[in-house]
Amino acid sequence: MRHDGRQPDELRPIRIQRQFTKVAPGSVLISAGDTTLLVTASIDETLPPWKAADPAAQKGWLTAEYCMLPGSTSPRKRREREKVDGRSTEIQRLIGRSLRACVDFETLGPRTIMIDVEVLQADGGTRTLGITGGYIALCDAIATLGDKVSKDRPVLTTSIAAVSVGISHGTPILDLDYIEDSQAEVDLNVVMTGSGEFIEIQGTAEGRSFTRAQLDQQLALAEKGIRQLMELQQAALKG
Amino acid sequence: MRHDGRQPDELRPIRIQRQFTKVAPGSVLISAGDTTLLVTASIDETLPPWKAADPAAQKGWLTAEYCMLPGSTSPRKRREREKVDGRSTEIQRLIGRSLRACVDFETLGPRTIMIDVEVLQADGGTRTLGITGGYIALCDAIATLGDKVSKDRPVLTTSIAAVSVGISHGTPILDLDYIEDSQAEVDLNVVMTGSGEFIEIQGTAEGRSFTRAQLDQQLALAEKGIRQLMELQQAALKG
Amino acid sequence: MRHDGRQPDELRPIRIQRQFTKVAPGSVLISAGDTTLLVTASIDETLPPWKAADPAAQKGWLTAEYCMLPGSTSPRKRREREKVDGRSTEIQRLIGRSLRACVDFETLGPRTIMIDVEVLQADGGTRTLGITGGYIALCDAIATLGDKVSKDRPVLTTSIAAVSVGISHGTPILDLDYIEDSQAEVDLNVVMTGSGEFIEIQGTAEGRSFTRAQLDQQLALAEKGIRQLMELQQAALKG
Amino acid sequence: MRHDGRQPDELRPIRIQRQFTKVAPGSVLISAGDTTLLVTASIDETLPPWKAADPAAQKGWLTAEYCMLPGSTSPRKRREREKVDGRSTEIQRLIGRSLRACVDFETLGPRTIMIDVEVLQADGGTRTLGITGGYIALCDAIATLGDKVSKDRPVLTTSIAAVSVGISHGTPILDLDYIEDSQAEVDLNVVMTGSGEFIEIQGTAEGRSFTRAQLDQQLALAEKGIRQLMELQQAALKG
Amino acid sequence: MRHDGRQPDELRPIRIQRQFTKVAPGSVLISAGDTTLLVTASIDETLPPWKAADPAAQKGWLTAEYCMLPGSTSPRKRREREKVDGRSTEIQRLIGRSLRACVDFETLGPRTIMIDVEVLQADGGTRTLGITGGYIALCDAIATLGDKVSKDRPVLTTSIAAVSVGISHGTPILDLDYIEDSQAEVDLNVVMTGSGEFIEIQGTAEGRSFTRAQLDQQLALAEKGIRQLMELQQAALKG
Amino acid sequence: MRHDGRQPDELRPIRIQRQFTKVAPGSVLISAGDTTLLVTASIDETLPPWKAADPAAQKGWLTAEYCMLPGSTSPRKRREREKVDGRSTEIQRLIGRSLRACVDFETLGPRTIMIDVEVLQADGGTRTLGITGGYIALCDAIATLGDKVSKDRPVLTTSIAAVSVGISHGTPILDLDYIEDSQAEVDLNVVMTGSGEFIEIQGTAEGRSFTRAQLDQQLALAEKGIRQLMELQQAALKG
Repeated sequence: MRHDGRQPDELRPIRIQRQFTKVAPGSVLISAGDTTLLVTASIDETLPPWKAADPAAQKGWLTAEYCMLPGSTSPRKRREREKVDGRSTEIQRLIGRSLRACVDFETLGPRTIMIDVEVLQADGGTRTLGITGGYIALCDAIATLGDKVSKDRPVLTTSIAAVSVGISHGTPILDLDYIEDSQAEVDLNVVMTGSGEFIEIQGTAEGRSFTRAQLDQQLALAEKGIRQLMELQQAALKG
Repeated sequence: MRHDGRQPDELRPIRIQRQFTKVAPGSVLISAGDTTLLVTASIDETLPPWKAADPAAQKGWLTAEYCMLPGSTSPRKRREREKVDGRSTEIQRLIGRSLRACVDFETLGPRTIMIDVEVLQADGGTRTLGITGGYIALCDAIATLGDKVSKDRPVLTTSIAAVSVGISHGTPILDLDYIEDSQAEVDLNVVMTGSGEFIEIQGTAEGRSFTRAQLDQQLALAEKGIRQLMELQQAALKG
Repeated sequence: MRHDGRQPDELRPIRIQRQFTKVAPGSVLISAGDTTLLVTASIDETLPPWKAADPAAQKGWLTAEYCMLPGSTSPRKRREREKVDGRSTEIQRLIGRSLRACVDFETLGPRTIMIDVEVLQADGGTRTLGITGGYIALCDAIATLGDKVSKDRPVLTTSIAAVSVGISHGTPILDLDYIEDSQAEVDLNVVMTGSGEFIEIQGTAEGRSFTRAQLDQQLALAEKGIRQLMELQQAALKG
Repeated sequence: MRHDGRQPDELRPIRIQRQFTKVAPGSVLISAGDTTLLVTASIDETLPPWKAADPAAQKGWLTAEYCMLPGSTSPRKRREREKVDGRSTEIQRLIGRSLRACVDFETLGPRTIMIDVEVLQADGGTRTLGITGGYIALCDAIATLGDKVSKDRPVLTTSIAAVSVGISHGTPILDLDYIEDSQAEVDLNVVMTGSGEFIEIQGTAEGRSFTRAQLDQQLALAEKGIRQLMELQQAALKG
Repeated sequence: MRHDGRQPDELRPIRIQRQFTKVAPGSVLISAGDTTLLVTASIDETLPPWKAADPAAQKGWLTAEYCMLPGSTSPRKRREREKVDGRSTEIQRLIGRSLRACVDFETLGPRTIMIDVEVLQADGGTRTLGITGGYIALCDAIATLGDKVSKDRPVLTTSIAAVSVGISHGTPILDLDYIEDSQAEVDLNVVMTGSGEFIEIQGTAEGRSFTRAQLDQQLALAEKGIRQLMELQQAALKG
Repeated sequence: MRHDGRQPDELRPIRIQRQFTKVAPGSVLISAGDTTLLVTASIDETLPPWKAADPAAQKGWLTAEYCMLPGSTSPRKRREREKVDGRSTEIQRLIGRSLRACVDFETLGPRTIMIDVEVLQADGGTRTLGITGGYIALCDAIATLGDKVSKDRPVLTTSIAAVSVGISHGTPILDLDYIEDSQAEVDLNVVMTGSGEFIEIQGTAEGRSFTRAQLDQQLALAEKGIRQLMELQQAALKG
């Protein structure tokens, strides 16, 4: 039994609120237990300079930024104002890469989608929840494009969700909160598509290496969690 | 009549939600019309180095940071990650200075309170709303100190609220939204105490200078608005 | 009686030397007591990028920088070389905003005037003296434009001067030096036009809030001081 | 057949030269085909400040920096002098994390080992080769500690090596060079211990998602390559 | 004949005003033709951290900063606020090194002298004039130390002055102004002591290499100019 | 006799390996005793922006960067990643200036040559060895231009080499290593052309001023050393 009473294969309660603010075309307040994020998706009708100079400049682009707000942790986290720390850089690169995997940039056309993941409260799993919520914000933002994009092919070619798994006292567990994450022997983040294929796998041994069998168990758990998250995404998008 | 149907002396609808997140001792979601802020108050049991070296080091300190999140405006605002822009610096200095005016730092003792104003959506009046909401977050944070502070004297010696006023087409108006602010001839921010005295007055002519009579009209309007805001603060703190 | 023997409504001795250097089109050495500034005005025949892209690009622009030189204080002030501190940012924004209020940018045409306020010695009141001296440097710089600007309308639509007032031991006083400033209960900076209207009012309670009556007394004092400063400006410009 | 004639499961030729320079206690010139790195290991007899303040301060630390020299690519890579780019940050965090997995920090004692990976020529696989070469530099540096560390337990608890695998035109291939890497559909970096367990797995879909079966094939290939690299490490360390 | 009518071996008119400001212990306004500098010398009763940790920490230190103010040139020079440019770095290192050559740091004791060279107007020769004026500011600052330093040995062991020489159209010339400097074939800065020995020689071919004979001619010219500058320094210090 | 057994006028053993890497058009591993550098020369077919805007934009440009790698010294040198230190700036400006003296930029045409001097191991004399090795890398890079440049005039108009000399215990010595450099009374770097003329002379008194006679002795020693270095350059370029 886990410290909060969950089964090893049980997600934390997920809450999703679309259009939390209205100025950004996509604006999702998403939480998993005590982890709370505001994910916005903005659209810029230009391309970044390095992209615009490219012969493939008819294709669009998507990029992401991730930021833990100072009040999201106790003790308060120092604001990243003079330089971005390595962890934030790594996470926002992962989020951008993962969400790019579901966009047909030719259909999107020469515009840039910016995903901003603001961590309002951090209790583990912010990067994977940012991807799961980012997909919803992305859907909402794309919907505002209307006739600016061709209707022949969908801009989004699949759905994307992500979850963390780990090994705690030898047992594989799903969707770790902060306490579990800091004690886990392995930390594995998995990003998958709606068709059940992998977009990204990042597994790190924390103090102890892991065997192939342990990897397999964790991947199975992740797959199960991601299927549930995708159902919640679809429900939110219909709601 | 104003573009949104308000009377010249009418505030926008104010919504206040305390404990929006739970990790920060003070956490207030506050909105005035479409301006939405998350204001957190954190407590650090140390003093900043320049303060700790001071003979008055038994006294506490309060400081503030202000940040417009990228998704708070359209077009998206570039994240301040490498340097803070001049406007943010100016605003956070005003917020810190204003809230320090209600704290008895001797009673607070050698600790630092950090007020973080995160602008989730910007539609004018963010700096004054940050002060008004910051006071509530500050009250909640101080309450968590319990027996760490003496009960002989209150830590907070008065209440603080703030509002913007301006002159539009020659008429003084209260609590400007973004459209009004960008067309106003004068922009005046007023911070007052619960006893009706001034903490800060910042008035700027925008393209046209203003007379003493116009200043007086605006100050009267500000005083009226601030009295209403203080009632809303008290109601929220009791709720 | 004040510590230097002045009456409450008495300015410090003002000295103004135009064309202190000759390479900049405007170059004014101005002092008020022991506060000494070199204010230069330079003209750039282009616009800043954000301005040039604007449909109103036929209009000119004015911007200001403020810098306390390391030797201007004791102990020596650390040079702002890696980042500008919040106070300097705030001051230079005030100086730029104030001086823009007297320029007809359409008549000026698509060029940029840069005002540089270098504090050679700091003894209080540097920001207001920077505005007062900046107006003179601006006049001299505009004069060098000759036939580049239309003679139909003047580039400068009014004159601008500024002064600080405060409350010390309950008495309102004019033009505070450093010692007075650090003990004052209120610090109020006022910028006015030649026609006696306000451009900017910035009043800050220092440890104690102030009443409406106290505000009125200070504004009267400021108005008197600014009238004298404007006479000194006119004398210097004729000299 | 691959563009350079290798079999799918064939490593590039590996060359290892220990003590390339003599001032650093570990200094390894390592190349895989045209990828050439200089990896040095330095020892600092202090701990980083955040570590020294920690109750576990009797334990040592290891950290890594990764830098592509400007001449390592064509066109020349701009030198990272004002800020480190996100990719370098991510890579050096991976290298540090991987090499920390083989160090018993209690036996090492309160000192810091710095691994510097300088890319002299980049042709794919720099991060994994940095880990493989870093392990050798680390062995050499530890050896210079002599009697400063206890002989009861080894400082290094296992060996570490790493390799990249990918899928190209549907076929899993080992140790990708730059051309292969830029065309691969999947990019997977694997770090393993001498006992055949995982330290880190980072798999990224490049334009196309991958199935569980494809993941399994790649892991098998990585394991085979890492076994060979470990033999080459042992040979170099004996040489 | 030179463009301003000077003989090849003639200095520009030198003006020196001590105590230009009064808050810094040394404050010298010095000009050579149209080059005008404010050089201040401040004293800090501590040592820089890297020096304080040193066993020789009973000895003092001197360091210099050099800054061209924006209004010192036409077009206006961009202010060095985010990073110091290479030329300024090089010049301030030269000024500090040169002035350190005349200080007995043991007699000075554990304090730091800061020389700040502010270029108010730039017309060539700012670095050498900064050294010549810096020596005067240094004398004045040392004089304020009074009984804080031993009287057994002088703090200043010699005097220091500097000048530029160059070759223009094949003729060696002394004390180049900006026009001459930009056309010269060789640019040579020479720093000497009161006893006629060298502290620093920096000679650079500008587009054309120079022979040993040309070097000798220039050194003779520099020696002559420096002797005159030293007389002017002595006169100013007596005045 | 010197600490390593050399005569006063004896160079350290010089080793030169061209094409150490192959991606950069010039790539030279050069060492003098224990000082080891990798010098690469890259060619960019564009000009820097400030140069391209220039009417002389048909002419090319050459610039240099100098970097001591962290493992090049003991204790390890902190990597210059956030700002370049003053010493590196000064050295790379010297290297660029010196090598520009041998290039006919009109013949080179509108392209930029970048010289990167990476210090793999530092034992004194890195800046002069960087120039000596940089000349070889430059020759190799120019050779790759083939028909892109006119054959009527050579791109390189002379050869360039450099050496350090100094005075140790009153004796002038050639090519100082780190130990000698840190004890020398004078440090003089000399850059010369193949025709025996000067490009740059930088002499600095270290704690003790030097006479004209001492300068002459050192210049003679430098000239002798540079002649030998030029023979080694020619041999390497033929080899």
